[in-house]
Amino acid sequence: MIPSSRDDAFALDRKDPLARLREQFDLPQEIIYLNGNSLGPPPRRALRRLRETAETEWRHGLIRSWNDAGWMDLPKKCGEKIAPLIGADPQDVLVADSVSVNIFKLAAALCKKCAGAIAYHADEFPTDGYILQGLSHLTNTPLHRLLPDADQHALSDDVSVLIKSIVHYKTAAVADIAAWEDAAAQKNIAIIWDLSHAAGVISVDLKKHGARFAVGCGYKFINGGPGAPAFVYVDHEAAKDLRQPLSGWMGHAAPFQFAEAYAPADGVSRFACGTPPILSLSALDTALDVFADAPISEIEGKAKKMGDIFLALSADLGLENISPPPSERRGGHVSLKFSHGYEVMQALIARGVIGDFRAPDIMRFGFSPLYLSYADIWDAAEILSDVLRSEEWRKAEYAIRGKVT
Amino acid sequence: MIPSSRDDAFALDRKDPLARLREQFDLPQEIIYLNGNSLGPPPRRALRRLRETAETEWRHGLIRSWNDAGWMDLPKKCGEKIAPLIGADPQDVLVADSVSVNIFKLAAALCKKCAGAIAYHADEFPTDGYILQGLSHLTNTPLHRLLPDADQHALSDDVSVLIKSIVHYKTAAVADIAAWEDAAAQKNIAIIWDLSHAAGVISVDLKKHGARFAVGCGYKFINGGPGAPAFVYVDHEAAKDLRQPLSGWMGHAAPFQFAEAYAPADGVSRFACGTPPILSLSALDTALDVFADAPISEIEGKAKKMGDIFLALSADLGLENISPPPSERRGGHVSLKFSHGYEVMQALIARGVIGDFRAPDIMRFGFSPLYLSYADIWDAAEILSDVLRSEEWRKAEYAIRGKVT
Repeated sequence: MIPSSRDDAFALDRKDPLARLREQFDLPQEIIYLNGNSLGPPPRRALRRLRETAETEWRHGLIRSWNDAGWMDLPKKCGEKIAPLIGADPQDVLVADSVSVNIFKLAAALCKKCAGAIAYHADEFPTDGYILQGLSHLTNTPLHRLLPDADQHALSDDVSVLIKSIVHYKTAAVADIAAWEDAAAQKNIAIIWDLSHAAGVISVDLKKHGARFAVGCGYKFINGGPGAPAFVYVDHEAAKDLRQPLSGWMGHAAPFQFAEAYAPADGVSRFACGTPPILSLSALDTALDVFADAPISEIEGKAKKMGDIFLALSADLGLENISPPPSERRGGHVSLKFSHGYEVMQALIARGVIGDFRAPDIMRFGFSPLYLSYADIWDAAEILSDVLRSEEWRKAEYAIRGKVT
Repeated sequence: MIPSSRDDAFALDRKDPLARLREQFDLPQEIIYLNGNSLGPPPRRALRRLRETAETEWRHGLIRSWNDAGWMDLPKKCGEKIAPLIGADPQDVLVADSVSVNIFKLAAALCKKCAGAIAYHADEFPTDGYILQGLSHLTNTPLHRLLPDADQHALSDDVSVLIKSIVHYKTAAVADIAAWEDAAAQKNIAIIWDLSHAAGVISVDLKKHGARFAVGCGYKFINGGPGAPAFVYVDHEAAKDLRQPLSGWMGHAAPFQFAEAYAPADGVSRFACGTPPILSLSALDTALDVFADAPISEIEGKAKKMGDIFLALSADLGLENISPPPSERRGGHVSLKFSHGYEVMQALIARGVIGDFRAPDIMRFGFSPLYLSYADIWDAAEILSDVLRSEEWRKAEYAIRGKVT
């Protein structure tokens, strides 16, 4: 299965049922984009839609577009399109605000209902822990941290709410949702799943595995645009009991009645807060249509295969793979450790292979099946090999650190 | 000063130093847009900038644009441009999230520091009260409501935090910031000013009048686009003591160190939360440049004059003016009460005069000096007069209510 030549890689592409999706994107010719795990590229149709939203709906329709162009419905409409990617009922997903804000809404609503502590996993994406630190400080709720290697058996009885990533942002390890939910159910713990690095690249079955609460990102594998609004999933039964504190007017049952007293909308709609950013939301809405042409299980399969190939082709370069090996399930990216990883990544970017770097020594390579070919993976591995063997990363220019790396 | 003919109105336009700004907008020919108090129209350059951000920075620059295109700096850069409109130091304003979310951040941070109640004014924009209701529920903080006609003397000693609009969303009455701040200072009350209906149309001197905390909207008179991100102002001295609970990674002192413990950035920057919506933010950033060509005091002067003229020309139509009369200061809009205001507004919209309606009986007309002419005001008043005298609003089609009105 691992190609032994560029022709082998092309042969894989010819048999790839997802290859036809590549034309929906308009990536610069000169680069191989392995950073869709951080910012997805624009689907052509999302760019067209954004122009239409700005230059027709905003410019000509003006205020009338809230109704006439369906702006009011976008948060729910986007949610309905995300639902099949994450195994949720369409009515249970809403697009709103950022991942960080949505974590706060959910954690605060759940924490208000329960007596126990809120907990996070020490080495997961920092904002998840930061938000719980903020909530704990505000409400004097005890805060627990799980050690990096803790599994579901480490959950203690005094925890009420846990935030947990499905795909680890560094390693791409995939959490066993069912196992965590089973352990949590025994201790009456609500888990908020963070799908930021999972949504759009692996198949997630939230409802089937008993997950009732989740958040996720619109700008990574979903390709919704830089800083695209995030999503929130709340099982409709569970939503009934939840009063989230960011109770802005868009989450009101009847926002345009301008009543003085807050009355939450039904279901996940009560997790809306302020007026949503329509320009960003409309790009996201159309970006999601790319997924209508591709089952998420096929997407996961191709992402895994591309990652396996990349790992195999770069196996003898002296890099340490900290991601799950080919025999295990993995998210859409692969992380390789190297003491001079920063410099190597700069040299790769200069050669047109764009991944990213996470301090202190991790190079991440994302494999979005929507626009990458097996030939891209072959070429990227060749260039990585070349950069390492030639030691061109030692050039002084690659050691200068920018702000976002 | 009140024109007695259309020619008089044209004469006013010829002398208007702000008239040159109109060409920066591209409003449809067939309408008179009196709803900039709800959604401002796009400046031409904001549409160009949005195309560039999407089709060059996102499409070609991809992840690199966070540095190379300055995306990381947009929240502060937009804040610096808003500062002169509201009388703030440039370093003290940040663009982030929505008005509702920003109210929560500020109210929660202040409420955590103080012992007393949080308070809102009963008839002001509902989301302000809704957010305090949510915060009160979460933290068990007592909640006070001020009666609609309460002034600053109604503040009781047990209040710690008050949210207060500078321009009332219905009446356009302007609050006396200095008087409220003086009364609040005596009782150690922190006021969060809501500038949503003020920013970009009246001159506000927050710092001069002792105001330390404010939020405001980017999509009304500032013309940043539908659902544009909001702003938050926090005096840098006051910010030092504040720990806001929506402590997402973008408000961290060093977000890209991925440290486990939250450490707030300096000043207002700690009020950032998640990743900002860049498409919406870039339109806002460029929309703000229109204000570089026009002193806010001139803008307020013209808005007032247009409102006065509109009130004078529609004085004998049987409508009740609930806005401040010509002798008083007023925000950028005028509100007229009429029992069939909904139907009249629909008839006006059908005739190309776009205002809005607030239940149960208020018609609002916004007067943005950036793109409206005195001739527009003359024509709008003529059409209003015609719709009322002819009773064309009685047509059945105007009685059907849409979702957003």
